[in-house]
Amino acid sequence: MNVVVIGGVALGPKVACRVKRVTPEANVTLVDANALISYGGCGIPYYVSGDVSDHTQLQETSFHMVRDVEFFRTCKDVTVRTQTRALAIDRKAKTVRIQGPDGREEDLPYDKLVLATGSTPRVLPIPGRNLPGVYTVSNLEAAVQIKEAVASGNVSSAVIVGAGFIGLEMAEALADMWGIETAVVEVMDQVLPGFISPTLARIAQHHMEEKGVAVYTSEKVLAMEGDGRVTRVRTDKRELAADLVILAVGVVPNDELARQAGLTCHERGGIIVSKTMQTSDPDIYAGGDCVVVENLVTGKPGYYPLGSLANRQGRVIGTNVAGGRETFDGAVGSFILKLFDYAFAGTGLSLPMARREGFDAQSTQVAQFDHAHFFPKKDLVTLEIVFERGTGRVLGIQGACANGDSLKARIDAVAAILKFRPTLADISNLEVTYAPPYAAAMDVLNMAANAADNILHGRCDPISPEDFMQLWQNREQENILCIDCREWGNAEPYVTKHPEFWKNIPQGQLRDRLAEVPQDKKVLLICNTGGRSYEAQRILHAAGRRDTLDVPGGMGLLRQCGFDPAAE
Amino acid sequence: MNVVVIGGVALGPKVACRVKRVTPEANVTLVDANALISYGGCGIPYYVSGDVSDHTQLQETSFHMVRDVEFFRTCKDVTVRTQTRALAIDRKAKTVRIQGPDGREEDLPYDKLVLATGSTPRVLPIPGRNLPGVYTVSNLEAAVQIKEAVASGNVSSAVIVGAGFIGLEMAEALADMWGIETAVVEVMDQVLPGFISPTLARIAQHHMEEKGVAVYTSEKVLAMEGDGRVTRVRTDKRELAADLVILAVGVVPNDELARQAGLTCHERGGIIVSKTMQTSDPDIYAGGDCVVVENLVTGKPGYYPLGSLANRQGRVIGTNVAGGRETFDGAVGSFILKLFDYAFAGTGLSLPMARREGFDAQSTQVAQFDHAHFFPKKDLVTLEIVFERGTGRVLGIQGACANGDSLKARIDAVAAILKFRPTLADISNLEVTYAPPYAAAMDVLNMAANAADNILHGRCDPISPEDFMQLWQNREQENILCIDCREWGNAEPYVTKHPEFWKNIPQGQLRDRLAEVPQDKKVLLICNTGGRSYEAQRILHAAGRRDTLDVPGGMGLLRQCGFDPAAE
Repeated sequence: MNVVVIGGVALGPKVACRVKRVTPEANVTLVDANALISYGGCGIPYYVSGDVSDHTQLQETSFHMVRDVEFFRTCKDVTVRTQTRALAIDRKAKTVRIQGPDGREEDLPYDKLVLATGSTPRVLPIPGRNLPGVYTVSNLEAAVQIKEAVASGNVSSAVIVGAGFIGLEMAEALADMWGIETAVVEVMDQVLPGFISPTLARIAQHHMEEKGVAVYTSEKVLAMEGDGRVTRVRTDKRELAADLVILAVGVVPNDELARQAGLTCHERGGIIVSKTMQTSDPDIYAGGDCVVVENLVTGKPGYYPLGSLANRQGRVIGTNVAGGRETFDGAVGSFILKLFDYAFAGTGLSLPMARREGFDAQSTQVAQFDHAHFFPKKDLVTLEIVFERGTGRVLGIQGACANGDSLKARIDAVAAILKFRPTLADISNLEVTYAPPYAAAMDVLNMAANAADNILHGRCDPISPEDFMQLWQNREQENILCIDCREWGNAEPYVTKHPEFWKNIPQGQLRDRLAEVPQDKKVLLICNTGGRSYEAQRILHAAGRRDTLDVPGGMGLLRQCGFDPAAE
Repeated sequence: MNVVVIGGVALGPKVACRVKRVTPEANVTLVDANALISYGGCGIPYYVSGDVSDHTQLQETSFHMVRDVEFFRTCKDVTVRTQTRALAIDRKAKTVRIQGPDGREEDLPYDKLVLATGSTPRVLPIPGRNLPGVYTVSNLEAAVQIKEAVASGNVSSAVIVGAGFIGLEMAEALADMWGIETAVVEVMDQVLPGFISPTLARIAQHHMEEKGVAVYTSEKVLAMEGDGRVTRVRTDKRELAADLVILAVGVVPNDELARQAGLTCHERGGIIVSKTMQTSDPDIYAGGDCVVVENLVTGKPGYYPLGSLANRQGRVIGTNVAGGRETFDGAVGSFILKLFDYAFAGTGLSLPMARREGFDAQSTQVAQFDHAHFFPKKDLVTLEIVFERGTGRVLGIQGACANGDSLKARIDAVAAILKFRPTLADISNLEVTYAPPYAAAMDVLNMAANAADNILHGRCDPISPEDFMQLWQNREQENILCIDCREWGNAEPYVTKHPEFWKNIPQGQLRDRLAEVPQDKKVLLICNTGGRSYEAQRILHAAGRRDTLDVPGGMGLLRQCGFDPAAE
């Protein structure tokens, strides 16, 4: 059996090796247009930053062998042809026309063909995009160029266009390790647009700004300019110095070869595959960054250019090419991002995404320690759970924490069950592992569902941090009063600074001081993390007051957003 | 509505407070036999160790208020009666007979009654069990006594009877922080019997021994001895010095009150409750350490005395007592344990447990880094996945890692879906979050399922580390040959030390050196973590050799078990 795999990063090599392990007699050829193959592309930001010192480390196995042509030959019995482009597929003849490094063309026969053609960074039609010093993170060769540029010492300022995952990772790489003055420009009104809510985006942006990265949202890049080499970026609001520009405005699936061969593709790009990862031609499989798969939350096609999914799909394709029948059902959209001292992660739909998909969605935030609050080592986890009103179906969860492994634990537990359409009750009772060094008895994940459940059942009337901050900024006109439900020691600086707008009634005293809650103001209940303010609201509910608003996540969450009423 | 709650730790306070939040008009009374209530009982080992400096910290909320009688009155509007015992339930009259600290008895009327009576440490009928210096970890008062004893400086040696969770946690507390010479005696043949496999138990025991704790398994304590105070422990094999003895041989549910009231209990102890947490009397709820709930893997009753489950059940009971209808479906048995520099965790059934339950079960281990292997910060995760032969149903997973948060992430993802009866394919494709600082593109969790899947489909013939070590110890008689599939640098010390039994054929050379694999020996294939040895076995399979055995997890796993053929 002749198996031809087109594409040598992530999915391609995975398929090739898996086929050989399942059916050792198969004759497997892997073709790639570049010289460097089988590298960990997601590691590029850490190579640029210097965390990973040499680019060959991204090509190494865990036992330090470089995955080059020779490695695939001796260890995997796979023929690899680099610097070789696939030009066309002849489905009738079952051949692929390829062109080698010497320019010669040749027809490779296949019984099974696998398209692992990946994706290409989107290029914006902006003047100056071809100037030296302007890069995309397209492949390892490009990464080597970027690293050489920053390591030369001639880059003192950089602009990243696009505040998606790669943009933010590259911003950290340049600013944190190389001390380059870095700015991120994003045309949408928040960082990580679509992936997280405005609240979590504000936490991310605030943290980046604390680390010295300038972030400009709702701002459009008009041109990259310079004399023979980029020196500045012009936006619709300002001019930014830039010895280096990285365009990171998303990727587009490489589906041309498939389209030319008449395989069914999605109207917005990407090869359409079945659950067995077959294209519309059953002898041609496709996977990784060049395909669309089902979004298991919405049931609609989704695009997930992620090395992790490519590897899982690669195993499925390898098994099936070798005569098995495995399926890849689709994706829920899990992600995690290291951003300086914080991790951001999520799975399923964010609130903006859920609403765009037509769900009657709501979300709430909680902030609680990852470990028992009495255990010395601990970090605050902020989670935002997204659910459907009425049904309480859980649509997604996102969060932030200084301990990325801790955050991963909470997000992955939800990622695992999302395809089973869990409700809030499922997450309230989710039996995650517990011991004080690793969790609270009622874990922050359970708490997130509990808080949402209280909203769902009308036991809590919340206000989002965004809306709270807007009310606070217009506090005079809005006629608000914050009732601080903490003890005096916590509330004092706020009451002292803003006596008209900030009042202290410790939660334990509220039952006896109900008369002090004014009827003629917008009353906002707040505490440290939302527990006592919720309790206070229940007391007010019992006293017939349904007109107050609770701030879930409390001051802990607001502080993470960079908001401090005591300082203003 | 009068609500009476019997028991003031974990579930009891949770129910009381939840009832008040849902139905503020309810009149809630909580009764507890002790003076100290509402403490984090699972934190006791960390209080004894000194990680938590004062016992009141275990009673504090996250905002540092002590949960005492006054706190429940002012903040929660709950009446708490401490040092008050519940003597009997009159279900017809709907009253509970209680006896206060002054000895006076009284009948408390209830509309809804909640039994949160907890559990009691099992006491063995061993001579000397009442000697001063012999303790059980029964409650916070007992913990204070233990801590006073160790802090007095008069304890230089200690014996822990029982190598379950509390026993091992207490061993660490005494040995690590107080430098007390500590021994653990366990009657079964491994630590954490039932919860983890012999392989993982060996890792735990080896680590404890490295930390200076003596561990004696398959050994029975016959007596605690001493003159007016314990000074030694006599087992069936030795005598151990002991100024302090902690009996930690499990707990038994406190179901006497329920039994006396005629409520249905399990024959082996524990109140039987419905999914709404009602006992056989619908006006009486029960939860926490005194009940049995359904094991969601086996469908049979299970006993899970864990503070985390108590809290989740408490919320369900609170809602239902207040007129709602929430359910607690059962438990899958998730746990995590800090043991010096390692964490051990699991969910579902271990291999011994699965076989005892009648499953045709098998397991395999993998060892891989928690983060991308090229990322600087990383720790090895060892996972053992337990599955059913034939169907590939996943029955459980257990593991060990120096980074407990990382381990938690892998275990909790499986814990979340276990009740949906996942197969290995579900875990192979599980979409956990990925970025190099937090995971590998093919995560160790996916790898565990992949490895098991290869065994399930006959692509890998494994040998367990236990069996491998036994073969190695009898290598002369067993006529074995280990083929080390790593490069020469790794294999050299073993080949040099044991030229007859250890041969190096790097995996990449095996296709050309098939003739060197002997036909007349038991051939064992080994590498660092199992990847190359599996690949080697596939090459041998293709060459018609089906008689070799692969060591999954490789030298990495064997070293964790304390096994080093180069040193022997």
